[in-house]
Amino acid sequence: MPNQLDRTTMNVVCLAGGVGGAKLADGLARLVPPQNLTIIVNTGDDFQHLGLTICPDLDTVMYALGDVANVETGWGRAGESWHTIAEVGRLGGPDWFHLGDLDLATHLTRTHLLQEGQTLTAVTRHLCRHFHIQPDVLPMSDQPTPTLIETDGRILPFQTWFVQERWQPPVHKIHLPTDARATPQVAARLEKADLVIIAPSNPFVSIDPILNVYPIRPMLEDLPRAVVAVSPIIGGQAVKGPAAKMMQEMGMDVSSAAVAAYYGDLLDGFVYDAQDDGLLAQGDLALLCVDTLMHTSADRVRLAQDVLNFALEIS
Amino acid sequence: MPNQLDRTTMNVVCLAGGVGGAKLADGLARLVPPQNLTIIVNTGDDFQHLGLTICPDLDTVMYALGDVANVETGWGRAGESWHTIAEVGRLGGPDWFHLGDLDLATHLTRTHLLQEGQTLTAVTRHLCRHFHIQPDVLPMSDQPTPTLIETDGRILPFQTWFVQERWQPPVHKIHLPTDARATPQVAARLEKADLVIIAPSNPFVSIDPILNVYPIRPMLEDLPRAVVAVSPIIGGQAVKGPAAKMMQEMGMDVSSAAVAAYYGDLLDGFVYDAQDDGLLAQGDLALLCVDTLMHTSADRVRLAQDVLNFALEIS
Repeated sequence: MPNQLDRTTMNVVCLAGGVGGAKLADGLARLVPPQNLTIIVNTGDDFQHLGLTICPDLDTVMYALGDVANVETGWGRAGESWHTIAEVGRLGGPDWFHLGDLDLATHLTRTHLLQEGQTLTAVTRHLCRHFHIQPDVLPMSDQPTPTLIETDGRILPFQTWFVQERWQPPVHKIHLPTDARATPQVAARLEKADLVIIAPSNPFVSIDPILNVYPIRPMLEDLPRAVVAVSPIIGGQAVKGPAAKMMQEMGMDVSSAAVAAYYGDLLDGFVYDAQDDGLLAQGDLALLCVDTLMHTSADRVRLAQDVLNFALEIS
Repeated sequence: MPNQLDRTTMNVVCLAGGVGGAKLADGLARLVPPQNLTIIVNTGDDFQHLGLTICPDLDTVMYALGDVANVETGWGRAGESWHTIAEVGRLGGPDWFHLGDLDLATHLTRTHLLQEGQTLTAVTRHLCRHFHIQPDVLPMSDQPTPTLIETDGRILPFQTWFVQERWQPPVHKIHLPTDARATPQVAARLEKADLVIIAPSNPFVSIDPILNVYPIRPMLEDLPRAVVAVSPIIGGQAVKGPAAKMMQEMGMDVSSAAVAAYYGDLLDGFVYDAQDDGLLAQGDLALLCVDTLMHTSADRVRLAQDVLNFALEIS
């Protein structure tokens, strides 16, 4: 592989789900020139609700990069209020998905622009411009690509399982669409990527839905440059959300080693947490063991820096 | 006509548009037992906006009857806030239709229930129950029945003309759908009506759209009991909105007499304001000249009382 890459000119693509992906994307955005950074975001969680098209992972990434995210919760807007959804509850409407007043503006504007005939890619570009976000944030697909969760005798839309049922029903199978196609923008960015970073997002319901979108997985497999994943498991636990619970239910070890094994040959490098030091090298997979927990903005930049340095080393 | 009617047993149906209709409906609701009162509301102003189904006249009537209306503006909710629509504007979305945070909850809940497959009649009943409204509030139709405004070289959706262009473009013609059908609930209530009151709403864009819905006009024409209209014109002016401007543009006198003439044979009685005293009786039309301006809640009850007494006299 060529080794003249440097951080100021290499094209970095980050595959991201929600909170963990948004944090690492934010760290990368503070280091990589915007024209060289693309965030490809899972849209398998998207759903129609109350008449609106809601894209939770796109929103989490945009709010983080736009510096308007609620840093306490990791999702939603800072300085949020809840007048509308409280009233929806009083009016006997569904209030299980917590839509803040500022957050609602994103969904209303998106729905309006989609109904005008714009693609989700174009709508996301519009929203990013208004959030003063410079790197490209791309939905993995412009088609609806719903992730479905099969649990005891039921197949649930993702948000029904994740939010309404608080990810408690055991996951027997994850159904991803068989006909999902990447946008031309996604394919073009992967084509010229010097580094692909798989963010510390849930491998099964955040990253797999992206890899499932044709031709993202084969493009990553063929990429001459490095594909590096950051483990979402720290100390045998998920930082947030159902990843650990899902691994148990699928009969996997809840460990970074299991995550690396799950991604398998797709990876050239794997970044895992210092709490899990001792993970054995698997084949010719390059390993980096650092502090991966991102509490603060500085943590995001430090991890992004570590990942970029590691990628430069192994490229 | 039988004359054993009394105020506690007669079935009253009020045809209402927005603000004026809502005020009179509220006055009637404080006098007529709820099981004997039905408000049939114009839905010609309804539109799809930002993904939502918005029914401005139904909302104005519900908010008035539910005692949650903004009495300053005559539309929208009391104690309203504007977080979401302000943010829609900042995100480059359309913010010309002023959607308050509480008001939005109505549209979100309505859109959700419609998308579940409920009729607008059922959805309105749901919302009324949650607003603690006892009389029946019925949309004139469960179908979309959009009123279109023909102005110089353009045919505009009603709300585009009314709100976005502030009803300034001259009205050359009003287009009402030719295939609008009343709901069974509307037909049943008209069938057993002892009195139909046409509220002081805009005759052209609030009341005509209701009369245009088959078979509402022929049912009123055949009704053995009284049909009484209240003039929306006071002292040669519209209390609110474009009625006077439209009358001028159509070459009509701007007067209560012209309103009575416009409704023509449909009416048995006509109520107009003391400021316009001297209006000549037209044929066998019974006339009542009283104070019709409704500033306060007491004004609403007084006018409703006057109209009911007048209807009893002429029945």
